[in-house]
Amino acid sequence: MKKKLTVDVCLSPYLYPVYHRDDAIVVVIDILRATSAICTAFHYGVDKIIPVASVEEATEYKKQGFLVGAERNGIALEGFDFGNSPYSYMSDKIKGETVVISTTNGTQAIEASRNAYKVVIGAFTNITALCNWLKLQDRNVLLLCSGWKNRFNIEDSLFAGAVADNLLADNTKYKSGDAALATSILYQSAHLNPYKYIRYSSHAERLAALRLKHDIKYCLTLDQTTIIPVLEGKYLVKMA
Amino acid sequence: MKKKLTVDVCLSPYLYPVYHRDDAIVVVIDILRATSAICTAFHYGVDKIIPVASVEEATEYKKQGFLVGAERNGIALEGFDFGNSPYSYMSDKIKGETVVISTTNGTQAIEASRNAYKVVIGAFTNITALCNWLKLQDRNVLLLCSGWKNRFNIEDSLFAGAVADNLLADNTKYKSGDAALATSILYQSAHLNPYKYIRYSSHAERLAALRLKHDIKYCLTLDQTTIIPVLEGKYLVKMA
Repeated sequence: MKKKLTVDVCLSPYLYPVYHRDDAIVVVIDILRATSAICTAFHYGVDKIIPVASVEEATEYKKQGFLVGAERNGIALEGFDFGNSPYSYMSDKIKGETVVISTTNGTQAIEASRNAYKVVIGAFTNITALCNWLKLQDRNVLLLCSGWKNRFNIEDSLFAGAVADNLLADNTKYKSGDAALATSILYQSAHLNPYKYIRYSSHAERLAALRLKHDIKYCLTLDQTTIIPVLEGKYLVKMA
Repeated sequence: MKKKLTVDVCLSPYLYPVYHRDDAIVVVIDILRATSAICTAFHYGVDKIIPVASVEEATEYKKQGFLVGAERNGIALEGFDFGNSPYSYMSDKIKGETVVISTTNGTQAIEASRNAYKVVIGAFTNITALCNWLKLQDRNVLLLCSGWKNRFNIEDSLFAGAVADNLLADNTKYKSGDAALATSILYQSAHLNPYKYIRYSSHAERLAALRLKHDIKYCLTLDQTTIIPVLEGKYLVKMA
């Protein structure tokens, strides 16, 4: 009997060292809003994205003339071209360009998992394409939630649960780690109306206070694109 | 309006530094089996328990003549008096004694949270007494899951969700962090039959392979005792 592949979920970038395995594909998840925005940017024609962890690096790239998105605590930082809103990337300005992005959580998760076998970007906006692609690979899958400042968050976990649920439907191919089991139960319990749970989450409250309900709705909309961004060296590029 | 207290869940001892707050009561949870066994030991008359993180410390105490329980990977270590099974502590031998315990996960979680405002021990076997006591305190509550080697596990999360669910029923007093919300949803989804989920968990599989189904059933039995063990210096004692 062929050994089953493992689907598991790492619920915080801080836990990544505990979950790292050399042979797993890592899906980085930051639903509100970094990975949603990254998928949008590729859909609107960006050529490459350079994710950077610190504002200092972002500033350095800005000085060199790059287009740069920078966000902290839900707010676009002054002096940069974009924040973290997917809507800000729906623009002809990015077409064919290389854009640098630094965010509170998502780019930290990319940084944490940089040495994984492969790092791809997941969001509700590319979920079907992502699941279909993952199922074509013969690999363990680790769904990495960006969380909020290394804490667990609801929206990333729900998305991880949605992907886990999809993959684990093939129980001849995949088996689940405990966190994949728990998030898939969470997702099953929420999936008729994920907004119901997410509106109670701390981050949705934070964004609602910043008048970003519009962004939340967009970030929970399935399949706006079929693009899967993938990390190649320091660049995120559109998967061939 | 009085500020609400926060109930949150830290899903791995490794994440404890991210969740620490000076004023919170920490409930250490290792359902299979350390915290269940600790509650049992107090119910059977142990006077004090010294939780230690390493086998070396446990060995040192053994040399000094203490009764010592030591377990790693679900197996009682040779040369000690007890392992991690609650049944091994149902014995007159421990009455009035000080017992040293070192386990794979639970005693690591106690170690991680040692500097909290207060550390208490939770298990399904003392859940009602624990919830009632917590509700009488005017404190933030952090439910700390021991997990499995710093990974998320189902059984500790379900228990955390059960306690969170109980406390959050009073929404004039408590508000939830995202992990408390998620685990309470998990619990609500499982609570008619927690065994249903736990039997799929990796640790239950591990214990079943070790022929410890009997232990699992006991550890999921509610309210075997009204004792709440509390950390005082290096000792766990029965709360007055």
